[in-house]
Amino acid sequence: MRRRLYEGFLIKMSRKSKGISAERDLLHKFWAAGWACLRAAGSGSMKYPCVDLIAGNKLRKLAIECKTSKNTIKYLSKEDIDQLKAFSGLFGAEPWIAVRFYKTEWFFVSIEDIRQSGINFAIDKNIITLKGLLFEELIK
Amino acid sequence: MRRRLYEGFLIKMSRKSKGISAERDLLHKFWAAGWACLRAAGSGSMKYPCVDLIAGNKLRKLAIECKTSKNTIKYLSKEDIDQLKAFSGLFGAEPWIAVRFYKTEWFFVSIEDIRQSGINFAIDKNIITLKGLLFEELIK
Repeated sequence: MRRRLYEGFLIKMSRKSKGISAERDLLHKFWAAGWACLRAAGSGSMKYPCVDLIAGNKLRKLAIECKTSKNTIKYLSKEDIDQLKAFSGLFGAEPWIAVRFYKTEWFFVSIEDIRQSGINFAIDKNIITLKGLLFEELIK
Repeated sequence: MRRRLYEGFLIKMSRKSKGISAERDLLHKFWAAGWACLRAAGSGSMKYPCVDLIAGNKLRKLAIECKTSKNTIKYLSKEDIDQLKAFSGLFGAEPWIAVRFYKTEWFFVSIEDIRQSGINFAIDKNIITLKGLLFEELIK
């Protein structure tokens, strides 16, 4: 029992560290492009709506939810989307979802561009590579 | 030796958790006032300029460095000030230093309002309670 708990903990930590590593990758891209960017602390554990990254320059502010997937469809919970909307609305930032599929670059989509699948939302690898913006297009 | 290292670690962690607790206190005040606010992850450990908190509404964005002190003078390093300036300049936010002394409320000062003391900067409790803005004045 204890062993199973420990294994569960390791899987959870491994997922968390992969998430952080993806966020950091994007953070480096923003700084390299001359934008300021921050990762949010405790984004999953606060009682307030939160996002993973916030990036800004003198003209624009972006609130970003980061997702990665090894499959061809990435599901997002309604809560993820609601938090992104709520935070961006209050802060005064553009809401963006950043997704990186296996062996693709980062693609950026707005909330209107993802399809609802039951109570959740889904992003298809094939659709996002057509509809999504590349990093260079996003910051243009 | 090992014991001393462990005690040093505990003191460092205790300082860190006090810092986080002060940042959270301020974060709650912003949300309660209808602003969105984020704590930055790893603000002391990234290679980029960073701040402790970022708060925003549709009109204003604030980059905030938080400090607390039990003494009557709080010293800030030149690096703290340089990071606050650099981040705010790139992100397009107003730079603010939030200070809470023992048994006082939070006071907010801009960089021009703190005096340089050798290579560092100093904030006097008596001066800040006259010159600094209260939270309610800051967000007005």
